[in-house]
Amino acid sequence: MLERPIQIAVIGGRAASEAELKLAEDTGKLIAGRGYQLICGGLGGIMEAACRGAYEAGGMTIGILPEKDRSMANEFVKVSVASGIGVARNSILAHSADAAIAISGQYGTLSEIAYFLQFDKPVILLSCQWQIPGATPVATPKEAIETIEELLL
Amino acid sequence: MLERPIQIAVIGGRAASEAELKLAEDTGKLIAGRGYQLICGGLGGIMEAACRGAYEAGGMTIGILPEKDRSMANEFVKVSVASGIGVARNSILAHSADAAIAISGQYGTLSEIAYFLQFDKPVILLSCQWQIPGATPVATPKEAIETIEELLL
Amino acid sequence: MLERPIQIAVIGGRAASEAELKLAEDTGKLIAGRGYQLICGGLGGIMEAACRGAYEAGGMTIGILPEKDRSMANEFVKVSVASGIGVARNSILAHSADAAIAISGQYGTLSEIAYFLQFDKPVILLSCQWQIPGATPVATPKEAIETIEELLL
Amino acid sequence: MLERPIQIAVIGGRAASEAELKLAEDTGKLIAGRGYQLICGGLGGIMEAACRGAYEAGGMTIGILPEKDRSMANEFVKVSVASGIGVARNSILAHSADAAIAISGQYGTLSEIAYFLQFDKPVILLSCQWQIPGATPVATPKEAIETIEELLL
Repeated sequence: MLERPIQIAVIGGRAASEAELKLAEDTGKLIAGRGYQLICGGLGGIMEAACRGAYEAGGMTIGILPEKDRSMANEFVKVSVASGIGVARNSILAHSADAAIAISGQYGTLSEIAYFLQFDKPVILLSCQWQIPGATPVATPKEAIETIEELLL
Repeated sequence: MLERPIQIAVIGGRAASEAELKLAEDTGKLIAGRGYQLICGGLGGIMEAACRGAYEAGGMTIGILPEKDRSMANEFVKVSVASGIGVARNSILAHSADAAIAISGQYGTLSEIAYFLQFDKPVILLSCQWQIPGATPVATPKEAIETIEELLL
Repeated sequence: MLERPIQIAVIGGRAASEAELKLAEDTGKLIAGRGYQLICGGLGGIMEAACRGAYEAGGMTIGILPEKDRSMANEFVKVSVASGIGVARNSILAHSADAAIAISGQYGTLSEIAYFLQFDKPVILLSCQWQIPGATPVATPKEAIETIEELLL
Repeated sequence: MLERPIQIAVIGGRAASEAELKLAEDTGKLIAGRGYQLICGGLGGIMEAACRGAYEAGGMTIGILPEKDRSMANEFVKVSVASGIGVARNSILAHSADAAIAISGQYGTLSEIAYFLQFDKPVILLSCQWQIPGATPVATPKEAIETIEELLL
C-alpha cells in the first residue's frame, strides 16, 4: 500500500497586494520543497502565486475550479478539475486537503476557513484579516509549514 | 407573471440553548406571518425551532438537507430536498434565499454567513457569536425581519 | 410525527412537441390531484408544462434549478431552489423524489433516469426515447401514476 | 502559456470480469503511454485497474471520489480529490475530462456517459452494455485511444 501524499491547501482571493503574492509564492515553494502536494482553487491572485512557487520548485499543483471547463486554470496548475459546482467547490478543497494556509482573502476565503475548521483540520493564517477562533496566526511561510507539520505528523 | 416569493433563511446549528431555540421559533413565526417562505438546512436545533414557528403560523418551510435521503428532515419541513452533497449544500441556501438570519451556530453557520456576504445578500446576526464585518447584529426577531425588509424592499 | 409527503419528479427537456407538453401538463395535474408534490428541474418545456398542470390543480411545485439564482424558474414553481451546481443538480432530483416520470428528453434526462435507477427508485417512461432496462414504459399519465402507486404504496 | 494536458476519463464500475479489468489496465497504460492524464472515479474495479495501468506506465492518475475523505482512493491514484458530493461528482468527471472510455459499468456509468454526451464530448464504449446513440463502440483499447485522438486532435 502506497502512502497517501499530504495535500496542503493555499486559500486566498484573486485580489492581493504584491507582498501577499510574494508570501503565497514562497509558501507554494516550501510546500513543494517539503514534498507535499499543493491544492487550491486554481484561479488567479493568491492561488496563481502559490502554484507558481510550487511549480517552479518541481511540485504537484492541483486546481479545483468553480467553472464548468478548465480554461480558467492558471498556467501553473498541473492537474485541473473543473467542478462545475461554483463556490460549492470550496467544500471540496476542505475535504481534499489535510490543512490550509490562508493568505489575504475575502468572504470566499472565509467560507473555506470555516469548512476546514468544521472538519477539524489545521488552518494557518498568514497575513489574513479573518481572526477566527481555532485558526492559528503565523508570521512567515516557514512558520506556517512548520506549524502544520507539528499538527499533522 | 407571478411574483417570486421572498425566501428567508434561518441558519444555525443543532446545538442551541433554550433561549436561542425560542428566538428561532419566534423568528420562524414572524417570517411566515409576513408572508415569506422559510428556508433552512432542514435538520434539528435552530433549524427545527424555526420550522416549527413558521409551520404553526401556516407558512411554507423548506429544508435543504446534506443527506442523500429525506429521512433526517425535521417534522415541520413541508418541502424537503435531499441534496446528497453534504456541507456543500450550504451554498445552495445562500443562492436560494434572499437574506439570512443567523442564530447561534458554529463553523457550519460561519460558512453560510460567508456565502451570503459573498453574494452580497443581507445577513442578520441574532444572538450569534460571529461578528463578521458586513453582517448586521440585532436584538430581536422583529428587528431582524424589519432590517431585512428595509434592505430588500 | 407528520408523514413525509410523496414527491414525484417529472423529468424531460426544454425542447418538446405540443403532444409531449400536453402529456406533461396532464401528468402534473394528476400528481397534484392525488396529493403528491411535484419536483422537477424548474425550467421550461416539459418542466414548465408539468408545473402548470400541478399548479392549476392546486398542488405543490418544486423546482431545483442548475443556476445560481431563482430568476430562471418557470412561473408555476412555488418553491424554487437555486442549486448553483449546474447539471450536478440532476442527482438532487433523484435523491429528493420517490419516483420519476420521464417525458421526451435528451442526454440530461438520460442522466436523471440513470440516477433514479441507480438509487433503485421507479422510473416511468412516457413518450421517452430512452428504453433503459429497469425503467417501465407506459402509454398514459394515468398509467404512469398508477404504476408508481403500485410500486411505492 | 503552458498547454493544458489532455485528460481522458476511464469510467466503469467496481464489479467487473477479469477480461474487463484487463481491458481497463491496458487502456490506462495506453493513456499514460501517449502522454495523457487519466482521470476516474478513484475507487476499485475498473477504476483501479485503469489507474494501475497508467501508474505503472509512469503516468498521472487522478481520482475524483464521491466520499468526504481520501481514504477510499485506490492505491494507484496520485492525486485524489474527496468531493464529498456523492454521485453528483459524476458531472465533475465529465467537466474535467476531454473524452471518456466506458468499460463495463452499471447505472452510475450510464449517468457519466449521459453527461459526457450532453457536453458534446467523445464517449468510447469498450465492452460496455450501454449502446447509447452518440457514443462510439470499439473493440480494443488501442482503437479507443485512436478514435479519441482523431476526434480531439
